[in-house]
Amino acid sequence: MSTTHKLVVIGYGTQGVYHTKNLRALDDVAIDVVGIYDIDPRANEDAAADGLRVYDSAEAILGDADIDVVFICTPNDSHHDYAVAALRAGKHVLCEKPAMMTAAEMRDVKAEAEAAGRMFMVHQNRRWDPDFNVIKKIYDEGIIGTPTYLEQRIHGSRGIPGDWRQEPEHGGGMILDWGVHTVDRLLTMVDSPVIDVYGELSFALGHDVDDGFRAHLTFANGLHAMVDVSTTSFLPEAKFWMQSATGSVVIEDWEMNGRIVRRTGAEEDDAVPVQAGVGLTKTMAPRIMDYKAMATTTPPVEELPLPEVKVDVMDFYRNARDVIDGVADPAITNDSVIRCLTILEAVVTSARTHEVVHPEQA
Amino acid sequence: MSTTHKLVVIGYGTQGVYHTKNLRALDDVAIDVVGIYDIDPRANEDAAADGLRVYDSAEAILGDADIDVVFICTPNDSHHDYAVAALRAGKHVLCEKPAMMTAAEMRDVKAEAEAAGRMFMVHQNRRWDPDFNVIKKIYDEGIIGTPTYLEQRIHGSRGIPGDWRQEPEHGGGMILDWGVHTVDRLLTMVDSPVIDVYGELSFALGHDVDDGFRAHLTFANGLHAMVDVSTTSFLPEAKFWMQSATGSVVIEDWEMNGRIVRRTGAEEDDAVPVQAGVGLTKTMAPRIMDYKAMATTTPPVEELPLPEVKVDVMDFYRNARDVIDGVADPAITNDSVIRCLTILEAVVTSARTHEVVHPEQA
Repeated sequence: MSTTHKLVVIGYGTQGVYHTKNLRALDDVAIDVVGIYDIDPRANEDAAADGLRVYDSAEAILGDADIDVVFICTPNDSHHDYAVAALRAGKHVLCEKPAMMTAAEMRDVKAEAEAAGRMFMVHQNRRWDPDFNVIKKIYDEGIIGTPTYLEQRIHGSRGIPGDWRQEPEHGGGMILDWGVHTVDRLLTMVDSPVIDVYGELSFALGHDVDDGFRAHLTFANGLHAMVDVSTTSFLPEAKFWMQSATGSVVIEDWEMNGRIVRRTGAEEDDAVPVQAGVGLTKTMAPRIMDYKAMATTTPPVEELPLPEVKVDVMDFYRNARDVIDGVADPAITNDSVIRCLTILEAVVTSARTHEVVHPEQA
Repeated sequence: MSTTHKLVVIGYGTQGVYHTKNLRALDDVAIDVVGIYDIDPRANEDAAADGLRVYDSAEAILGDADIDVVFICTPNDSHHDYAVAALRAGKHVLCEKPAMMTAAEMRDVKAEAEAAGRMFMVHQNRRWDPDFNVIKKIYDEGIIGTPTYLEQRIHGSRGIPGDWRQEPEHGGGMILDWGVHTVDRLLTMVDSPVIDVYGELSFALGHDVDDGFRAHLTFANGLHAMVDVSTTSFLPEAKFWMQSATGSVVIEDWEMNGRIVRRTGAEEDDAVPVQAGVGLTKTMAPRIMDYKAMATTTPPVEELPLPEVKVDVMDFYRNARDVIDGVADPAITNDSVIRCLTILEAVVTSARTHEVVHPEQA
């Protein structure tokens, strides 16, 4: 059995509270949340009411020899300095996403962690999302053959929350928000270099930070992928859509509505030209003839439900415990986080220069 | 009243038959289809059965002083030479799409038409499609404000028909098939230079021609647009999807299912973080809470039906008649066709070089 670890949360906002509740609820993870540090008096009151010790400063935590883990849940621009200070004080560090403002900061923190012999691990929780894991299973197992194109979307319509998330100096904007999830997942799934990055940033809301972006990635293995994050989408498009030469997959929404359609036969008769719009089309003769039902397909295709995948995001904490105890490798490597931030920087560079960026060699 | 014109169809395949039927049915268009020329004996038999004169050669048509119009409906690689020969013989020319194999061919034919003082007009029939005209109305009238991003899709799953359409030497492939419709419509709608073109071609089916493509266009006015044509999509995505900062539009399918959702109020309360997947999200808190109904939205947004637009593709023939009679300008200008082919060539160049092409200046 592992020894009991003592953790302090730096930044007791939504995510700090979330991690505290999770760690308290997990009987099999011996990481006790003992205290917090926050600059907001209300957060301190909440923490005290939750039975947590309220530290006066970050230095006080780092000087507390009882504490061996900190969880950084502050705005993005403070992650680097808190992480370096904590690692140099001999603490293990968990950190909210985005880990850092830049890939360079992340390389620095990785080196500090290695020098200190301590864990630094980022909470890339959305690697455990059901939709991603279903798409990954379909991709890994070739359920529609070899995918040629993948769309991953996160669409909201409420703009950017009105706090530090609108401010560039604090790491606001969607590239550093949902970008670090969506691109991270893509890189986790596709084991191939990213040879082309074409980016488009949205500033539709008039902030100094991007309120969304589209990233078009080409992998050396031939897969094209689009990541589309929008805070001004009033009709959200499907969260995942993937195609191969012989099948397609869609996951519509957070509730995992979706399906697979794939060919069952090698050949079929040439399509008959049909009236579509004001013209005839043979090439695009639709298979689905009953749009109301949106279910009637003509052979030789079959429809399958999405496969089931059992994953548990609480494994993040279990893995962190094992990494601290020296009995497991980190589920989220610092190299993978550096890579994701590098690709996101390529998206921004591409959008600003109106050119393709080639971040990795085939 | 206009005089009666006599037209011969070159290439009595699907489109040649289609135009013959239309012209015969139009009481108000005095263009009589009197004959055809085709290299296929079966087409000749069909034409004779349809009461049409069967010419032995294209030269025989061009030497027939009774004929003042030809309609070129042959495979793509023959359009240029037939067009030039017909214009030099003093005929007016209607031509199936793609007008030409290249923008250079089209510039040549435009010059020939001007030198001959005759009409050359391309059958860009899909400028009259209901879906496009509804999107154009929403765009033109600002029904969702100023659009920031537009997707236009044509998705089929039957591959490329197994005739000359699979052969590069005859102008096969989707760039020259649905590309000349989809990009043409975009250029027709958006009155702004195309400053960036990023292209991805699909060769998923192993032909020597593209079986689909994605074209990402940035206009000088700030609009980003994606055109996505696929012959390997088993779950067709929406034909049109457009967003602004304050609204979104979708047209799902050929049957014009679709809707508009737009904001009604200037401001709203900050979203409350909600559970989505394995994490909390405030930014992407969904408005649609009932995915089964897919209709329940929370204020301050409203849902509108698609506007109605009355258009009649038969106006193509009426306009052709008026152009020949010298009483109207062409509905489809040769400059617009040259521009479309130029942008499509930029898509191909971009896909081949993996770089952005900048075809037009802001």
